Parts: sequence; structure tokens; C-alpha cells
Amino acid sequence: MEIQTVNIIGSGKVAKNLGIALQEKGITVSCICSKTKEHADALALELNASSTTNLSSMPIADLYLLCVPDQVILSIVAMLPNGVNIAFTAGAVELPLVNGSSKIGVFYPLQTFSENRKANVFEIPFYVESEDQYFQQNLFDLAWKLSKNVHLSTYKQRLHTHIAAVFTNNFTNHMLVLAEQHCLENGVDFKDLQPLLKETMNKAIDLGPRKSQTGPAVRNDQTTLISHEAKLSGKSKEIYSLVSQSIQQNKLID
Amino acid sequence: MEIQTVNIIGSGKVAKNLGIALQEKGITVSCICSKTKEHADALALELNASSTTNLSSMPIADLYLLCVPDQVILSIVAMLPNGVNIAFTAGAVELPLVNGSSKIGVFYPLQTFSENRKANVFEIPFYVESEDQYFQQNLFDLAWKLSKNVHLSTYKQRLHTHIAAVFTNNFTNHMLVLAEQHCLENGVDFKDLQPLLKETMNKAIDLGPRKSQTGPAVRNDQTTLISHEAKLSGKSKEIYSLVSQSIQQNKLID
Repeated sequence: MEIQTVNIIGSGKVAKNLGIALQEKGITVSCICSKTKEHADALALELNASSTTNLSSMPIADLYLLCVPDQVILSIVAMLPNGVNIAFTAGAVELPLVNGSSKIGVFYPLQTFSENRKANVFEIPFYVESEDQYFQQNLFDLAWKLSKNVHLSTYKQRLHTHIAAVFTNNFTNHMLVLAEQHCLENGVDFKDLQPLLKETMNKAIDLGPRKSQTGPAVRNDQTTLISHEAKLSGKSKEIYSLVSQSIQQNKLID
Repeated sequence: MEIQTVNIIGSGKVAKNLGIALQEKGITVSCICSKTKEHADALALELNASSTTNLSSMPIADLYLLCVPDQVILSIVAMLPNGVNIAFTAGAVELPLVNGSSKIGVFYPLQTFSENRKANVFEIPFYVESEDQYFQQNLFDLAWKLSKNVHLSTYKQRLHTHIAAVFTNNFTNHMLVLAEQHCLENGVDFKDLQPLLKETMNKAIDLGPRKSQTGPAVRNDQTTLISHEAKLSGKSKEIYSLVSQSIQQNKLID
């Protein structure tokens, strides 16, 4: 069975970006279901789909794609009609068992999505899982229409990828939040850090992060480490100290 | 006095990148001085300059530019001839006093340099300082030839900028080192994280880092936080825990 029609449950950033990408590849998004009527209506309008706030009033589709917070996946799965094909987009939720003749799988895109930025889905790695080999292949084929990089995965592999993604996205971004906060508190324009930020990322991609590590910690410049820490407080200071230790420990392992 | 000739002390990444940029703007790099003869010779050849390992045998130049580790700046300054103009490129070293009729200043480029990557110096913010107003203006004019973004700065401002740079470059890069290490240990290809890394940076620049924060910590997803931490150990685990706490604390302040 080729997946040709999809119902999307959820109307947030993942729903919007995947919905647009699916439609661009000729997949019909039949219905958007969201607990907030306005959100369902808005995305449905954009995708020329129907909309509902009621899980049981969706038209039948080849796939029910859950783009919802991790915590509600299980309860939504339990409310879907018997005999349908379900996939969720979470990085850290294990494949649950489903009752009856439904099938369930994972359709995890490794990317951070935004409300008003269109993702380049073709570049995004997709991780596809199901206990049902045939359904897994259907999900693989669907992902393959969207992206040039699709993996048949396991929960363990997906979980480790998700952990690496937390460091790569959430934690690097938080370092920038702390940098910006330090700038604000001390009359420095964070915009001046942008060329450095761009080069940091380009270097990490070209040379790899290990070879790109610079700064007072890796060169064991205690004078600078002490003078920096003296200017920090709270969590910024704790993070400065712990990350500097970790950089030095990594250097010893090299 | 317009600075037209420069001696560079040091032959590393900063020396090379600034030497090339100065020469491209018509400044003469007269001499490269490095403690390692081969390094001095190699950069001198590239810049069509003379080379030496002896600080006292450099030809006279309008500026002696120190591109050396922070720890040796003071001892090199003490060995330079009396009456010369000196600038150093460090972010965290306070302006020292100099004897006699020499002048000293700061010429700090806010960027991470690499051996084999040519920096786009025109984009780099420069921070210029001197107690001598006239010399400070000379340094400003020199930086202005290289970059569209030059600040007359103070030690305090430069130090805070340097701290923000440590978070922006060194610490984001270390998060990537830990991500890559986690991938290596768990059979995930770090290359698959590259689209996420690119989007992380683009988002942080377009929306600002505060609005870009996503992930289990900011949405207080305890199940995921616990399952991730259970898979980590050592400094990675400590960092996961502390940075997640800091993300949650920041959210409360919002």
C-alpha cells in the first residue's frame, strides 16, 4: 500500500512543516485535527484540508500522523479508530503496543522546526520504525518522497540520535542565550558576536568539532579562566566552570 | 601618523590571518618574528617579509603587532626596543604600563581563526584601546581599513565581549564535541546532525536565541529528561543536568 492520504493530528510547527512538505510531494492531507479549533482551521486552510477538534470525526486516510507533544501520544493513539495506520514524530517515545488491527510506527524528522521558517525537508534525516515490516516499508517510502536521507531505525538508535540532537541544538542554543544575556547585562551588542557564531558552525562542519576547539579552557589559560569566572554568577558561572572542566578533560583524552 | 608598516610577533593563526588582511589593504608587513625559525620563515615567505627569531633584530616599523599567547605578552613587551608602538590581539589581557617613550594598545579581533581557512576580516568586529588618544586613533584607522565594524573600547567592555565569545564559540563547540562523542559511542553518524546544526545557527541569528529555545528542558518534559540522563555518564551527564536546569530557570524568568 502506498500512503497517498494523511490525516495530521496536531497543528504546531511539526504539523505545519510536514504537512506542507507532504502536500508538495503530491500526498493529500485530508484532515487536520487539533484541540484548538482556530489552530486546526488555520492549518487546514493552508493545506486545503478539512478540520476538526474531534479525533473520531476525521475522514479515513492511509496514515494518521501524530505531530503532538510526547506526553499525549499514548492517549491519542488509544482514541483513534481501530484498524488504522498510525505514526508519531517524537524522538524519545518508545513504540507502544496497539490494540486490534491498527499498525503503529515512527516517522521522526531530525530537525528543529519554526512557525515562520520553512524547513528544507529534503536535507532532513528521517528515522522510520515499525514492528510491522510492511508498514515500516510504507513509512520508509513516504519519507523517501520527502528526503534524501531516510533510516530504518530502532528505538535505541533513535533515542541516542535524540540525545545528540539535544546537545547539538538545545544546548548550543542555550549557550547563546547565556552569551546574549551576558551582553545585555554588560552593554555589549550581541550582534557583534554573529560573525563568530557563523564561523563557529562553519568550522565545526568543515573540520569537525574536536579540531575546532579553541579558548582559555583548552589551552589551560588559568588566568583568563579565573578572571572570567569572577565576572559571572548563578547558573552562568556554574556552567562556565563545568564546561571548562569538561573541555580540559576531553583534551587529556586526545 | 598613519600606520603603514607592521612587524608581526607570532606566526600562528592570528598572525597569519591578520598579516594577510593587512597586506591586502596595502600595509607593508616588514618582518615576522617567531621563536621557531621555520614558522617565521614560512609566514614571512607568504607575506614577502623578512623573518627573525630575535626580537631585537627586527627592522623599525610603525607598529609591532603581538599575535602571541596571553601569558607571554608582558615579557615580550618588556623586550621590545624603547620608543616603538605596540599592540596586542588578546581579549582578556589588561593594558600594561610601558617604560620610556613606547606606546601600547589593543587590537582585538572578535573571531576564531584557523590555520587553513581564510577569515572574512571585513565582517569581524575589532576592539581598539590605548591610554594614548593619538595612538588609539592610529589603531582605529588601521582596523577601519580591515573591517566595517570597529569599536573604541575599554578593558571592561573587551573582557565582557570575550566572556560572551567563550559561550558563543568555545562552549557551543564543546556541546558539539559531546554530541559527536555520543554518536561515536552509540553507532550514530554525526553527519546526520549537520542539517540540525545549520538550522540551529540560522534560527539563533534570525529569531535570536531566546525565541529559538526548544527541547525537553524548556517544555519541562521530565520523562525525556530522565530517559536521556539515564543513557549518559561522566561530564556529559553532569552537563546535561546543569544545562537543563539552567534552561528551565531561564524560562521562569521570561
